[in-house]
Amino acid sequence: MQTQKLLVNGERLKQELETFADFGRTTNNGVTRLALSEEDRLARNYFCSCCEKLGMTITVDDMGSIYATLPGLENKPPIVMGSHLDTVKKGGRFDGVLGVLAGLEVVRTLVEHNITPRIPITIINVTNEEGARFEPSMMASGVLSGKFNKEEMLKKVDIAGITFEEALKKSGYEGSIENRLEEAAAFIELHIEQGPVLESEGLSIGVVEAVMGMVCYEIEITGESDHAGTTPMSMRKDALFAMNDFIHNVRQKLDLLNGELVYTIGRVNVKPNIHTVIPNKVVFSFEARHKDEMVIADVERHLLEQVEFMTEQGGCQVELSKMWSRDTVWFDENLVQLLEKSTKSLGYSYKRMISGAGHDAQFIHTIAPSVMLFSPSKNGKSHCEEEETSWKECEQGANVLLEAVLTILRDK
Amino acid sequence: MQTQKLLVNGERLKQELETFADFGRTTNNGVTRLALSEEDRLARNYFCSCCEKLGMTITVDDMGSIYATLPGLENKPPIVMGSHLDTVKKGGRFDGVLGVLAGLEVVRTLVEHNITPRIPITIINVTNEEGARFEPSMMASGVLSGKFNKEEMLKKVDIAGITFEEALKKSGYEGSIENRLEEAAAFIELHIEQGPVLESEGLSIGVVEAVMGMVCYEIEITGESDHAGTTPMSMRKDALFAMNDFIHNVRQKLDLLNGELVYTIGRVNVKPNIHTVIPNKVVFSFEARHKDEMVIADVERHLLEQVEFMTEQGGCQVELSKMWSRDTVWFDENLVQLLEKSTKSLGYSYKRMISGAGHDAQFIHTIAPSVMLFSPSKNGKSHCEEEETSWKECEQGANVLLEAVLTILRDK
Repeated sequence: MQTQKLLVNGERLKQELETFADFGRTTNNGVTRLALSEEDRLARNYFCSCCEKLGMTITVDDMGSIYATLPGLENKPPIVMGSHLDTVKKGGRFDGVLGVLAGLEVVRTLVEHNITPRIPITIINVTNEEGARFEPSMMASGVLSGKFNKEEMLKKVDIAGITFEEALKKSGYEGSIENRLEEAAAFIELHIEQGPVLESEGLSIGVVEAVMGMVCYEIEITGESDHAGTTPMSMRKDALFAMNDFIHNVRQKLDLLNGELVYTIGRVNVKPNIHTVIPNKVVFSFEARHKDEMVIADVERHLLEQVEFMTEQGGCQVELSKMWSRDTVWFDENLVQLLEKSTKSLGYSYKRMISGAGHDAQFIHTIAPSVMLFSPSKNGKSHCEEEETSWKECEQGANVLLEAVLTILRDK
Repeated sequence: MQTQKLLVNGERLKQELETFADFGRTTNNGVTRLALSEEDRLARNYFCSCCEKLGMTITVDDMGSIYATLPGLENKPPIVMGSHLDTVKKGGRFDGVLGVLAGLEVVRTLVEHNITPRIPITIINVTNEEGARFEPSMMASGVLSGKFNKEEMLKKVDIAGITFEEALKKSGYEGSIENRLEEAAAFIELHIEQGPVLESEGLSIGVVEAVMGMVCYEIEITGESDHAGTTPMSMRKDALFAMNDFIHNVRQKLDLLNGELVYTIGRVNVKPNIHTVIPNKVVFSFEARHKDEMVIADVERHLLEQVEFMTEQGGCQVELSKMWSRDTVWFDENLVQLLEKSTKSLGYSYKRMISGAGHDAQFIHTIAPSVMLFSPSKNGKSHCEEEETSWKECEQGANVLLEAVLTILRDK
């Protein structure tokens, strides 16, 4: 029997996205809604009231993450959708909130069609994904998964000196440890891609197989600070030129590795940073991401070999400090296939892809089988006011989410 | 007739250098004596009292530069010695003050030997050579030579918001425009080398033929600021990697030019300077110095060609702004030969050299035939608390100065 597909209400989703953009909208049509700020509190309140109107039950865990649950016929572990409502400073209208509001739209669609789900359906808003007010990012999901220590997280301080714990209490969203997510049939996070790949390939949906592993180093080069006019080139220990050689040589090696490798030097600090003085110190970050740990191992080997090469040569001193690393998180293959099937059934163009950015789903995957969906980002921009995903693409993402939920409800 | 050479009193010179180091001595045996500060005022007062005791007349010009003059038998343009009493923040005990106190020691030696000079002898303390409190450096000699506009200089402001004019009035050293240096038989400035050449070659004296010409650029590279994890390498416009290519390519060209060329990238600012974000802007300084303007022209050509090359390639946008330049100032060849002869007659080792650093003498040379003498800098260090020149080397420098002055007095 061929039934007409159930679809979300794209206009309603758009209206809700615009409503949430008012919680912290900037003059350039972006959003500043830092975790547990007044803007975040108002957005949370509004989200809870929307869910309650649908007959959902609200619970809050000890890190302030909100769970809105529509009861199912059977009291079994829920299907969970969601993402985060917080943004970076001068961020956009889609990052995070799209996943929460698409979840809301899915539930609204079920409710208005009088569908009582076989098992419960939960929408989660995870606290402080961005880490823009309180580092690190993915704080609450990190605590949930046991990756981060809760007591340490509570003491994290924002630039005004307020602790996470104080901000949590003030927000009114300090809940109970008993409410933490412990089991789920599935967790599906719809999110914007935050990169240019889908748009450049003309695709509507990314089915995310994994979050890339990465490694992050700090490199410190120490030379000598001499007068720029009086010191012959042969007698210099110029830390900036040593950095130039380091980066040049390492790039030559890394560009021969796998084409999917990405690596970035985002932060560089030069001392004393005076135009007439030869720099005596340069400290810079280096990060690399790839799904294959063997490629990451190659990157690390090339870094170390370059340090050894420069140490043997004499001149400036080079020190390499590994700041942190994370392994690639492969999502649940059954869920990946489910999303592919759902996308195909709707006739949307898509590709399987690997997320270069970190997301709550990578931590939640340690608790429950998880997967992610990407909607395209215009010009690949995110974490900025220009961040944009078309309303149609938002609607398509929500439709894939709905189709996947319906399939799980049917099949389990 | 073979007479015994007249020599300075090295112990007295040492004592006086130590006395002046007390005007602003730092905990690490350096000196902070910013132009027209209280420390500078006390040093000036003490210098004037020393000169007055020797029967010298003190006059002060409209930029606060002090002239202490020992009258001569003939009222003709004077022989002028001197340098500056101001230092940078946490500077050393020798930069500037050595030239002033060596001049004082020369006059003391003449006076104690009852030598009344044929023509007047003047010691000058030039205001604000360092430019550490009020930019630019060599401010007062620049006004003297007409290079800088006096009214603009008076309005220059320090970090506390005090203008040069206010500081000058407060110091009590605001003099008259009529007292400016207008004519001189010669100006000889003894200064520390501020570089490692004399020490590394085991020489006691540098006879300075010229101050190197230089050119200073600011280079701005503009790319795009994207997420470090989600943007494939081929789709990036990474301003930091573009800077790295720029510097690498330019260095390859410049290193084939003349071996005496020095060039420095001392200042680099990266935006947004966050380790997970691809830099969208890098602004850096580039300066090059060489005595030969054809070499400087080659440097500028290579910079421009690299900008053109990168512009043709596409990718990041590169903009080159010439901030300023100065031509090489060749000192008076007769005075250079006089200093060589004086040094040889004392049996000191020496070499002719070119100053990479700027000095008041380069501006005063537009008013009167000028020349400089260098004493060695330990490890080439200056503008820091470790700055050091041995007492013996200070004494040797003062002896060459004395010998040169005696020769001019005899010959003219």
